[in-house]
Amino acid sequence: MNTKKKNAAPTMKDVALEAGVALGTVSKVINGLPVGASYRLRVEEAIQKLDYHVNSYAQGLKSNKTYTVALLIPNTYNPFFARLVYEINIALLKRKYRMLLCTTDFDSKLEQDYITIAKQNKVDGIIGLTYNPNLQVDESISFVSIDRPMGLHIPCVASDNFAGGQMAVEKLADLGCKNVAFLRVGSALDSEPNKRKAGFENGCLARGLSYEEKIITDGQPISEFEAFFQSHIANGKLEFDGLFCVTDFLAHEVIKMLKNLGLTVPSDVQVIGFDGVRAFGTGDYFCSTIVQPVADIAEMCVSLLLSETMQTKPPLICLPVSYAYGGTTKDSEAFAKFAKKGEAL
Amino acid sequence: MNTKKKNAAPTMKDVALEAGVALGTVSKVINGLPVGASYRLRVEEAIQKLDYHVNSYAQGLKSNKTYTVALLIPNTYNPFFARLVYEINIALLKRKYRMLLCTTDFDSKLEQDYITIAKQNKVDGIIGLTYNPNLQVDESISFVSIDRPMGLHIPCVASDNFAGGQMAVEKLADLGCKNVAFLRVGSALDSEPNKRKAGFENGCLARGLSYEEKIITDGQPISEFEAFFQSHIANGKLEFDGLFCVTDFLAHEVIKMLKNLGLTVPSDVQVIGFDGVRAFGTGDYFCSTIVQPVADIAEMCVSLLLSETMQTKPPLICLPVSYAYGGTTKDSEAFAKFAKKGEAL
Repeated sequence: MNTKKKNAAPTMKDVALEAGVALGTVSKVINGLPVGASYRLRVEEAIQKLDYHVNSYAQGLKSNKTYTVALLIPNTYNPFFARLVYEINIALLKRKYRMLLCTTDFDSKLEQDYITIAKQNKVDGIIGLTYNPNLQVDESISFVSIDRPMGLHIPCVASDNFAGGQMAVEKLADLGCKNVAFLRVGSALDSEPNKRKAGFENGCLARGLSYEEKIITDGQPISEFEAFFQSHIANGKLEFDGLFCVTDFLAHEVIKMLKNLGLTVPSDVQVIGFDGVRAFGTGDYFCSTIVQPVADIAEMCVSLLLSETMQTKPPLICLPVSYAYGGTTKDSEAFAKFAKKGEAL
Repeated sequence: MNTKKKNAAPTMKDVALEAGVALGTVSKVINGLPVGASYRLRVEEAIQKLDYHVNSYAQGLKSNKTYTVALLIPNTYNPFFARLVYEINIALLKRKYRMLLCTTDFDSKLEQDYITIAKQNKVDGIIGLTYNPNLQVDESISFVSIDRPMGLHIPCVASDNFAGGQMAVEKLADLGCKNVAFLRVGSALDSEPNKRKAGFENGCLARGLSYEEKIITDGQPISEFEAFFQSHIANGKLEFDGLFCVTDFLAHEVIKMLKNLGLTVPSDVQVIGFDGVRAFGTGDYFCSTIVQPVADIAEMCVSLLLSETMQTKPPLICLPVSYAYGGTTKDSEAFAKFAKKGEAL
């Protein structure tokens, strides 16, 4: 009579017994190490017969590796975050790693809690796009940050936001703009995307454009921009012929406002956003835009996080952005096709 | 001299020793069971001093519970999937569960592989929105399916797609339509969303509308719909005054086509989609739409999956949908406001 507890999962020992081989042979087969073909066959048959499954949990305890990475991100419904989650998952999958998804809703406490939870789950590393300026990450855990510099011991991966800001305004200049404005909503938090403003200013200086900036913080109503436009309309004409908005979302909102004010995009004023977000994730760009290289950001984060040989990890990595036409600028069709070749999102 | 291996993580035993209490007392504090206040304080101080962290891995091995749920979903960049991932994560977080995110890219083999991986990781259950008609899910694992019926032992959670299809066409009838069409792209796979068509037909019969249907499969070019419209234009006028599209994405594409054909939405033809997708996840609806109750679907999936007392799980649960105005129908502003109250996404 079989005294084995009913339903108890079979172990490697059971497989060895069933196959009539040594435990080490089973281990070799499971870990893909070379063994004689007949041994391999016997082990594989025993695995199938017993319905044996590798216990990643027990493996994790032994090897001190779980092949799991936690991703901290505010949410997945913002299309930029949604695409980032997807690309990071692809980059992990390629390396046979799994993702523990932690959506934080911009909650500082939750961000900190998730780091504790991730450590308790013995993840091999954490990738974080966080908003807690005081986030505590001890050096015992491998961490890569997206967009937020968090100190020299934590690599930060971002788009080249400065170059993107400059690219946007130089594109506006190429398309005939003389008097432009930069619009931004955002926290005062030190972050790489803040460099879009500096890039914009640099581009204006380089091309001799006159410019204004209207910056509101997260709490302020977006209608502040409408008041800003109204104060810059004379005889039904907007003073600006080009606008650079800090995100595609803001550009989308601003275009609605302009329409309400009786202005037409792009004939009255050209608009460029930032991110490269597409309707339904794969369709049209919402506006002409600076495209973030999301797949490259994801690949770089995962590659850095899991690198065991790199003793000195680079503190800041900026990846190249590209311009894409999305109907809110005066690019010709032919030009649009050319520009779209560089699209990454 | 301290002979403890450098960097070895402190254990519960170390905490007990430091606090000068029994191991059982430490366990009670960690698991939130009642102990005397002074004992609790001593244990908490020892935990802080030693920087002790619960080893969820070891806990999982002992308790046979990992407080982890795997989610199988094609991707996160489709906005409906993106919102679903977010809401399921919220529902898990409320119960202190974590999500292992498995994006499958509609790949049947990957879907099956992820079930093996999830089992190896000893997840407490799997929620799946899958496309593999032959997906093998043995009864040893708790599984809840979204949108796909997978047999009586696996609960399936979906929107009430039949009611949604009927609601869409009844709304078109209320708004004056007499001659409508149903447009669909989709696989032949048996799935709950397929009932949108039956609901549409039922609504047409109930309201005495004449109707046509144009259904193409996943591989066919979407331009088939343009040809369909062209064959139904007489003297520059489309025969249909109302269209029900199986998704918001299709509605969005169809509206572009109609524009190319010189037709105006909603004055020439009204369009209703399905899903309730918003631009940028939180902004405008792309079109007038039947809104899926994504938060309710998420909550129901998690609740069913983790229910330990429910011996007989319901095989199919259909959750109520609602209509939302999104600019592509002739609802008055006042009506739109009224209708929007029911919005869920």
